[in-house]
Amino acid sequence: MKRWLVGAPMSLAQARHERLSKTVALAVFSSDALSSVAYATEEILLVLVLAGSAATHLTLPISFAIAGLLSVVAISYQQTIHAYPSGGGSYIVARANLGPTPGLVAAAALLIDYVLTVAVSVAAGVAALTSAFPPLVNHRVVLGVFFITAIAFGNLRGVRESGRIFAVPTYLFIGTLGLLVAIGGARWLLGDLPVVPPNAVEPATTSLTWFLVLRAFSSGCTALTGVEAISNGVPAFRPAESRNAAVTMGWMAGILGVLFLGISGLTSVMGIMPAEDQTVISQLGRALFGQGLFYYLIQGSTTLILVLAANTSFADFPRLSSLLARDRYAPRQFRTMGDRLVFSNGIVILAGAAILLILIFQADTHALIPLYAVGVFISFTLSQAGMVRHWLKEHESGWRWRLCINGIGALVTLAVTLVIAMTKFTHGAWIVVLLVPLMVLGFRAIHKHYELVAAELSLDHLTEEPPVENTVLVLVGDLHMGVVRALRYAQSLSPSPKAVFVEVDPTWTARLEDRWSKGGCGVPLIVLASPYRSMLGPLIGYIDRIARRTPSSVVTIVIPEFVPRRWWQHLLHNQTALLVKGALLFRRRVVVVDVPFHLET
Amino acid sequence: MKRWLVGAPMSLAQARHERLSKTVALAVFSSDALSSVAYATEEILLVLVLAGSAATHLTLPISFAIAGLLSVVAISYQQTIHAYPSGGGSYIVARANLGPTPGLVAAAALLIDYVLTVAVSVAAGVAALTSAFPPLVNHRVVLGVFFITAIAFGNLRGVRESGRIFAVPTYLFIGTLGLLVAIGGARWLLGDLPVVPPNAVEPATTSLTWFLVLRAFSSGCTALTGVEAISNGVPAFRPAESRNAAVTMGWMAGILGVLFLGISGLTSVMGIMPAEDQTVISQLGRALFGQGLFYYLIQGSTTLILVLAANTSFADFPRLSSLLARDRYAPRQFRTMGDRLVFSNGIVILAGAAILLILIFQADTHALIPLYAVGVFISFTLSQAGMVRHWLKEHESGWRWRLCINGIGALVTLAVTLVIAMTKFTHGAWIVVLLVPLMVLGFRAIHKHYELVAAELSLDHLTEEPPVENTVLVLVGDLHMGVVRALRYAQSLSPSPKAVFVEVDPTWTARLEDRWSKGGCGVPLIVLASPYRSMLGPLIGYIDRIARRTPSSVVTIVIPEFVPRRWWQHLLHNQTALLVKGALLFRRRVVVVDVPFHLET
Repeated sequence: MKRWLVGAPMSLAQARHERLSKTVALAVFSSDALSSVAYATEEILLVLVLAGSAATHLTLPISFAIAGLLSVVAISYQQTIHAYPSGGGSYIVARANLGPTPGLVAAAALLIDYVLTVAVSVAAGVAALTSAFPPLVNHRVVLGVFFITAIAFGNLRGVRESGRIFAVPTYLFIGTLGLLVAIGGARWLLGDLPVVPPNAVEPATTSLTWFLVLRAFSSGCTALTGVEAISNGVPAFRPAESRNAAVTMGWMAGILGVLFLGISGLTSVMGIMPAEDQTVISQLGRALFGQGLFYYLIQGSTTLILVLAANTSFADFPRLSSLLARDRYAPRQFRTMGDRLVFSNGIVILAGAAILLILIFQADTHALIPLYAVGVFISFTLSQAGMVRHWLKEHESGWRWRLCINGIGALVTLAVTLVIAMTKFTHGAWIVVLLVPLMVLGFRAIHKHYELVAAELSLDHLTEEPPVENTVLVLVGDLHMGVVRALRYAQSLSPSPKAVFVEVDPTWTARLEDRWSKGGCGVPLIVLASPYRSMLGPLIGYIDRIARRTPSSVVTIVIPEFVPRRWWQHLLHNQTALLVKGALLFRRRVVVVDVPFHLET
Repeated sequence: MKRWLVGAPMSLAQARHERLSKTVALAVFSSDALSSVAYATEEILLVLVLAGSAATHLTLPISFAIAGLLSVVAISYQQTIHAYPSGGGSYIVARANLGPTPGLVAAAALLIDYVLTVAVSVAAGVAALTSAFPPLVNHRVVLGVFFITAIAFGNLRGVRESGRIFAVPTYLFIGTLGLLVAIGGARWLLGDLPVVPPNAVEPATTSLTWFLVLRAFSSGCTALTGVEAISNGVPAFRPAESRNAAVTMGWMAGILGVLFLGISGLTSVMGIMPAEDQTVISQLGRALFGQGLFYYLIQGSTTLILVLAANTSFADFPRLSSLLARDRYAPRQFRTMGDRLVFSNGIVILAGAAILLILIFQADTHALIPLYAVGVFISFTLSQAGMVRHWLKEHESGWRWRLCINGIGALVTLAVTLVIAMTKFTHGAWIVVLLVPLMVLGFRAIHKHYELVAAELSLDHLTEEPPVENTVLVLVGDLHMGVVRALRYAQSLSPSPKAVFVEVDPTWTARLEDRWSKGGCGVPLIVLASPYRSMLGPLIGYIDRIARRTPSSVVTIVIPEFVPRRWWQHLLHNQTALLVKGALLFRRRVVVVDVPFHLET
């Protein structure tokens, strides 16, 4: 079953072949960033429209500001790619240059945003789908969960196959949206652009303040999420990795900027307002091309790229978790690659968290947006600040102008982080602002624990010790072939094992002692009195007395255990064994051994 | 915590003192039977009223028929008590005289009815409470669950304390209801009885057929549930047990008959109709005494006895389960007494099942009634039939007239069983008719399993065998003090243990081999190659090769396991150990031993 879903295991030698060409890498790492075109303009509009329809003329200026921000961030990250060819995620850069805590803050912020990327992208993808096929609107949550599960399985299969799967929809999206922007632009130049009559003139529910404009800007900044993906994934590029990655970063930023500005511009000049039942892109497509084949192609490719955008996170979340685990900040099971050369545990955790968000927020993009982007900009800021420190230490060629670029990047992204956190605080950003420090505390607690354990386990504590004095006891309640098997096993562990019986009913003791002479295998039977019919009290007392005798004493308790053939038969056996095991599990210098007796019946 | 709720443990020597005087025994064993007065008349009325208000004149004749049935059953059971002084429940009598299957049918029927007794009594008790305090009606389910839980804890404390708790409300109920019947009867003789004006003349929704009359009779037969309780509990009486139990049975039947006929008679002559919001007893009390102190005393004692009636089942259900377990028809954990001399497992299961019924039927007495009584009458019939066979075999003094009494009892209860099953089949009795054979099949499956296991475990299979050839392997992934502890422990089990390492990453192997020379304790390290990074595949292959070597080969796998101090730290460790344990648990001739390493940090 697992093999059929996930594929045959792959040896480590196959890892080298999993490198990506620039065109495939653009599809794998840029789908998140590019796909945000599908909702960024709409989120700006949704805020501005609170101050009435007239306020929406600010959409284009705000979009230009965001495009400017995009170019600053992209150029900043190209410096990072050159400085960190082995993968320069914010965590690595901030940790290396600013210290462990800033690194962990960046890591926490990024992990949160990877989860949100999956949830937001899938929710927006479902919205694009239901715009085209309105009857599906009631199944949003089910569709969202289905898409996340499908992507998770795709990723569990491994990275190059992922690349192949994702290349087609990404280029289809770039093609169809590019065509939409180009044709729309041409018709605007020719004065042939249709104007959409507004459904209703939106009444202003608030006045147009600077705060509202900044909130609209914050919402639009979701367009930048995912831009950093390439810098994390440099080692997945073909050699020369850094150069290829930086070029791909440039392509991506250019395509993203053009599409985003094109959509915002067309929306503005055509007077499109956000609607309950349709996305802005869907309205644009219908107005420009009618509800024909090309309209469905736009909606289809938008849905696909949004759903697949989540894939960016499925590449990065497990990679970042494994870095954290390598540095002992996360549970060590995130560190191991599965048998398909991907970090399976990270993939599963990410899918689970994103499905949870889809369920809680009922697959509603607008409800998720305020949580989004805060984390990304925190990590942008820390990454750029780290690069500033980097250039101050490493005086490579061109370090002065690189320092300048990263310095500007750091200041701009810091300002945007504060704007987003403040304008969206009450709408949900507080959750992230609260979660980041909590996660950092968690990372540090895990780290401290692993460090202390490592110290405790260090071979420096190795001393000459006398051999372990092992007393082997077989716990019996009766004498039958299962017990005989356990007695014989105990005799293979120790030359002088003893059998221990807790006497609840004295008449039973006499019967047992009688049978013991026949099948006791020469093992002496010790009877412990139990006036209150408790199994455990007398047993634990007896064991403790032996275990405390000398520092090298250990007591091994052998328990015969039935292994029945059917599940319901478990209910009919082993209750006492379970009880004893539970009670002795956490006792020092006591080892419990089950000797299985496989029932044939 | 458990001690405070349940009390200190008691030794078996204390068991003797837990015997009951006749007056206390009446309270403990009769509360179920007596309390049915609170709803039996109402259930008759609820059926008759379907044929219109006029049909309710049949209430008193039907009640007389039921009272006659009660005397037949009570006198029958007095014979049983004499013949089975050690406790003559239907299971024992049917099994001893008719064979195992009839015995199991009786047992299944009784177990079902004990659960229903708890559910119906508690539901009716809550109804009596909400009649007096209508605002509580929305909390019926919560009240029901609370009462069941409280009774269960009372019973977990032990039987004599239970007796003390239950004596006061039982006698209070007999006193207040007796006074109600006496005063009502006196006022009727004086011609002073108030007539309740009907809320509305009930329209007939069906015609008054013989089937309807029999259905009303069936509903009224719930008055007889619990009559058999005393015959199960003979050993709990003070000596001479049989005589005392038989006398108590007579008292109980007399009191029950008088109260039931009194209530039915007063209801008839006063023209009381069943109502949604009030029980019939509550209407009687209000009409005769006004809503004063005595009214609240009636409702209070009715609530109390009904809620405590469930106690009869809490004495009998665990006792019957333990008998079944002793005969290997039920899981053996029902057999053991807890440290307060009660069969704790039976008490817990009964409480759980009754709470489930309360939740499913929303604490509605009328919805539960059709399931009730079928089981009781099945067991009555089998018990009396068994007694007929008993007297035919054992010719004690008076066996001829005792045979006649039990013969009449058997025929009458068989007829009533058929009437109940048929008239109530579609209303819910089908559930019981289906459940009884299923439970019997379950009992037989358990019995067969235990018998086969016993045969397999029999010491007849004991043969001379060569000593076990035990190969002790320590599974390692690293070398640290936890592993050193495991290696030293392994050396106490075998003169030549080996360490096994599954190589996932060859660079790690070199590092491990280097460290091994320092801390390996002289144990040889075996490296198993794993091209696909699977832990389990190579390990299981290696183990299987050793285990199959000779018939006396056993492989002991020693796994070092961390025991952290805090729960969340478990998530950070032992994932591999858990995986390996799970995979090897059901393998033959493989024993897994965890050597705990208690972390100090």
